[in-house]
Amino acid sequence: MKTYFECIPCFMQQAFRAGKMTAKDDNQLKTILDETGCLIKTFSMQSTPAEYGAEVYRIVREITGVEDPYKKIKEQSIKEAKELYPELKQIIEQSENRLLKAVRIAIAGNIIDFGVNKKFSLKEDVSKILKQDFAVLDFEKFKHSAEKAKTILYIGDNAGESVFDKLLIEEFDAKVIYAVRENPIINDATYEDAVNSGLDEVATIFSSGVKAPGTILNQCNDEFMKLFQSADLVISKGQGNYEGLSDVDRPLFFLLKAKCEVIAKDLGVDKNDIILKDINIH
Amino acid sequence: MKTYFECIPCFMQQAFRAGKMTAKDDNQLKTILDETGCLIKTFSMQSTPAEYGAEVYRIVREITGVEDPYKKIKEQSIKEAKELYPELKQIIEQSENRLLKAVRIAIAGNIIDFGVNKKFSLKEDVSKILKQDFAVLDFEKFKHSAEKAKTILYIGDNAGESVFDKLLIEEFDAKVIYAVRENPIINDATYEDAVNSGLDEVATIFSSGVKAPGTILNQCNDEFMKLFQSADLVISKGQGNYEGLSDVDRPLFFLLKAKCEVIAKDLGVDKNDIILKDINIH
Repeated sequence: MKTYFECIPCFMQQAFRAGKMTAKDDNQLKTILDETGCLIKTFSMQSTPAEYGAEVYRIVREITGVEDPYKKIKEQSIKEAKELYPELKQIIEQSENRLLKAVRIAIAGNIIDFGVNKKFSLKEDVSKILKQDFAVLDFEKFKHSAEKAKTILYIGDNAGESVFDKLLIEEFDAKVIYAVRENPIINDATYEDAVNSGLDEVATIFSSGVKAPGTILNQCNDEFMKLFQSADLVISKGQGNYEGLSDVDRPLFFLLKAKCEVIAKDLGVDKNDIILKDINIH
Repeated sequence: MKTYFECIPCFMQQAFRAGKMTAKDDNQLKTILDETGCLIKTFSMQSTPAEYGAEVYRIVREITGVEDPYKKIKEQSIKEAKELYPELKQIIEQSENRLLKAVRIAIAGNIIDFGVNKKFSLKEDVSKILKQDFAVLDFEKFKHSAEKAKTILYIGDNAGESVFDKLLIEEFDAKVIYAVRENPIINDATYEDAVNSGLDEVATIFSSGVKAPGTILNQCNDEFMKLFQSADLVISKGQGNYEGLSDVDRPLFFLLKAKCEVIAKDLGVDKNDIILKDINIH
């Protein structure tokens, strides 16, 4: 997915928010906004928003020296999600359609996003999404693919959401590889966050090599690319991964909540819609 | 009022919105965003947001060649406001406190603002504001000042809102000078817009000389400065004028609806609050 013009004010907003959280003083914050402003001219609209985002957070990191501004927030999100885990597990256990319920729960976890959202209430928002209708639901295809798959590549998104992913992964019989970001970027899940979420108990955790807040294939390491090509099923969580993978040449399933107008427009749905979408552009 | 860091993403948003409306193609729109981005570095946070805004709209104007992108919108706003005029006049006629009702109506007109708001519904929003409590209401002082004033300088804000201003001006016995912007800027009222609003029937319309979307005193012409110093009562409408005049060294009254978090914070009120505030920093 290319960058839309609407994304550019949003990058400034993200630079402000991340800068506000990490800058030592007003001078640092102004420098972050200055440099993010200057970045626009150097950037092509053919790049994905995730690539743009990577540059914005690089600026914040270089100016403030803070490598992982969302570290505490990520720990807190994982903690809160883990507290919900038993209740969510019970919902799945009691469901007549366990897999569909687990898909819903995995999407519900996608609300934990400090790049797009400013505010969310985990428990309330999760309970809303558990009742929400899907705007796109390619469930039968997904179920069929999941049942026959021997290997599943599950591309994770945010820390905390990762605990919700665990609940879905527990429904699969296949060997699951859970892909994470190489470095801290916004509140995206890294190797450490995935381990803290307990994903090592149900999957092989693997860094894609990407430093952007989304899967940019030409930034991925060779091992990831091999997995990406060979896995029987690829599941992509969240907006950032969608941005990088919406045009790729292999079948995969997107699980996400459309949290901004731009992603919604690109998907042909409304903002706040939830989707399980089969993309097969062959 | 100085520029807050929160204003910077908002300038990018305004550049996007005005650019989207006027740019001939994507290249022009990208250039507008590029140049607005580069502008940040050159700007001091000690300047007012209105000065920043003037630069943003200058960029849009220079790149697109469109001098008055909001021309049709302004004409439409004036037309819609004029259609409401008889009904609003009747509300004042039937009121037990005509002046206070006219103040309310003048503030209600302040919702017509394409710089801050994306969407508003004139009739509905006006009827809401007519019932809304004031967050600050220095009415007795205002009434007293208005009754004893021989000359009133009324600094206008947006086109369309100008028709609502007329209803308030009709309640004054004093000679009223209605100040407008020198050039088209966003949907701010110019001389032509004020005449179209019928303000020439109740006031002397006068350009402050300012090309910014707010009254920046060091950009005002000498005639305006004389009026500003000598008028018995100065009324400043809307956010843009507040930005330029909040720290000036003369008593005046601000009439506005706080349409953004930043202005609300600066005024010590909540977003969407309405105020009639006496500023006397002597």
